[in-house]
Amino acid sequence: MNARERFLAACNCQPVDRPPVWVMRQAGRYLPEYQEVRAKHDFLEVCRSPDLVTEVTMQPLRRFGLDAAIIFSDILVVPEAMGQRVTYPTGGPKLTPPIRETSDLERIKDCEPERDLAYVAEALRHMRRAMGEDRALLGFAGAPYTLATYMVEGGGSRHQEQTKQLALRKPGLMDNLLDRLADGVARFLKLQIEAGADAVQIFDTWAGDLSPTDFERLALEPTRRVTAQLAHLGVPIIYFVNGIAAHIEAAADSGATALGIDWRMDLAEARRRTGGRLALQGNLDPLVLSGPPALIRERVQAIHDSLEGAPGHIFNLGHGVLPTTPVEGVAAFVDAVHGLAK
Amino acid sequence: MNARERFLAACNCQPVDRPPVWVMRQAGRYLPEYQEVRAKHDFLEVCRSPDLVTEVTMQPLRRFGLDAAIIFSDILVVPEAMGQRVTYPTGGPKLTPPIRETSDLERIKDCEPERDLAYVAEALRHMRRAMGEDRALLGFAGAPYTLATYMVEGGGSRHQEQTKQLALRKPGLMDNLLDRLADGVARFLKLQIEAGADAVQIFDTWAGDLSPTDFERLALEPTRRVTAQLAHLGVPIIYFVNGIAAHIEAAADSGATALGIDWRMDLAEARRRTGGRLALQGNLDPLVLSGPPALIRERVQAIHDSLEGAPGHIFNLGHGVLPTTPVEGVAAFVDAVHGLAK
Repeated sequence: MNARERFLAACNCQPVDRPPVWVMRQAGRYLPEYQEVRAKHDFLEVCRSPDLVTEVTMQPLRRFGLDAAIIFSDILVVPEAMGQRVTYPTGGPKLTPPIRETSDLERIKDCEPERDLAYVAEALRHMRRAMGEDRALLGFAGAPYTLATYMVEGGGSRHQEQTKQLALRKPGLMDNLLDRLADGVARFLKLQIEAGADAVQIFDTWAGDLSPTDFERLALEPTRRVTAQLAHLGVPIIYFVNGIAAHIEAAADSGATALGIDWRMDLAEARRRTGGRLALQGNLDPLVLSGPPALIRERVQAIHDSLEGAPGHIFNLGHGVLPTTPVEGVAAFVDAVHGLAK
Repeated sequence: MNARERFLAACNCQPVDRPPVWVMRQAGRYLPEYQEVRAKHDFLEVCRSPDLVTEVTMQPLRRFGLDAAIIFSDILVVPEAMGQRVTYPTGGPKLTPPIRETSDLERIKDCEPERDLAYVAEALRHMRRAMGEDRALLGFAGAPYTLATYMVEGGGSRHQEQTKQLALRKPGLMDNLLDRLADGVARFLKLQIEAGADAVQIFDTWAGDLSPTDFERLALEPTRRVTAQLAHLGVPIIYFVNGIAAHIEAAADSGATALGIDWRMDLAEARRRTGGRLALQGNLDPLVLSGPPALIRERVQAIHDSLEGAPGHIFNLGHGVLPTTPVEGVAAFVDAVHGLAK
């Protein structure tokens, strides 16, 4: 069983020799060789160059025994393709102008990935040639709600105050934005699958901060609109909601094949509450990778043991690896998962 | 049944004519009369003056039909009493020097509330005289873990990176800090109860970001050490964990009388998962108060209906009221709860 087969088997809740493992944001700032690339090229330049994307996506695969690569890109390529200006000053991304009125939405165009995001498809094809056939390759996109928060707030935000207020005060405008995002995201993920992605992940970074009522309307329904357009392709879809504990039963009805579980929630409880219907991905606290290797091994073993051999587990962190993480911590994590082999 | 009786009955899961209601951070920046006081006096000056505390604590009681007042203060009075320097520049509180080494902890003194925090007890006595006997008065403190994050990070933080690393790398130091905080917090809450608080709330703002393993050790155990020292006083203790969904079964074993539930979690599910053993407080999304009054009424009614008449519900927001909240939104919220009277 090679890494790609192992990854796909786990996504489909089939038996594996050991859980497959990859790391959210595995191509990133904690790697000195990534820092070297970034010293010469700014973030968007890397995202837009299939060669540079391939280089940074390959970097963690050279160091660690990872079962999957995720294409290096950014969730904000979709708002940019819709005509918002996206920049990355210190302190977080800025999107201008923010969407607040009907006239703001009218200025936004539909995302046409074949035209606007062809460079991501190109990068996936490059990457497949570079990595070969025996490991899995993932594409991804931001979820409609999370993208909407960036577009409405004009960047990241702590409380998504403008977004929630827009949803309360101008529900029609908000629904229209979410529908257009869902259709754009679906087409973008389809393009990535056609370019060779074995699976796709949908990142709903901010949806965990919604009340159950609002999660249903603002996060779940638009995500279902995405997954419904991809179902016929038969490719695994992983839905990651940061802060999923309050919403896991709802998220299990998203049409996804697997759920990404953040580190706050007990993984065995996640399995109980989803009845084993979906694969689960996660969920070591990223901060644990800053601890001693023995502790990393212990925590990996505890997560594994808690599942009592149930199929359908993709090992990962519960969130992206932090820039301050020592490379040795990531190595210890991947090695510990390898050590779980039957 | 007066407001005080209603509040205490709900805390003890006894029948009430309607749920009691108060609002976290009800004395605060959304009120123009609070802004007026703050234009003349800085934050710490207000906290330290029993007259000013009484004035700002009374302000929301004059406007709204609230069943309880919570004494105006700050969770960081405890780290300050332990000898850290606490300032409030723009961008959030700063605590210096941060606790990182054994030598930092050795410089910290034990919190002696009778000596260091007598001004809070004095404010509670003033407040009781001003508010009379028919409404409930709450005291509060930060939970040991949340206070530890501020003391270790030197302020607020997104990932509590230093705190979690300290807990991994120097567990003895962390446990020592948490023990000392727990004992200081317990004495401080006892002082507040002796000064007339009808109930106390323990705020664990950052504990929801812990993994289940770490929640148990870093948040739950220290909180149990607090509640164990207060149990004989027979006064309700409300334990508020922001992001409780992942940890609610554990939090139910904290020794608290009631749990504060943030807005992310369905309140009826919170009741199912705690088996009705504790009262629950919450949990409207604070952002809903920025919506139209009809929507506020609808959401209040939905929360109430979801509990199907089970006893032991204290109505509140799921987090503190935001500074941008219109006063009319708070009025509509309180009126909507009054409208639930049988």
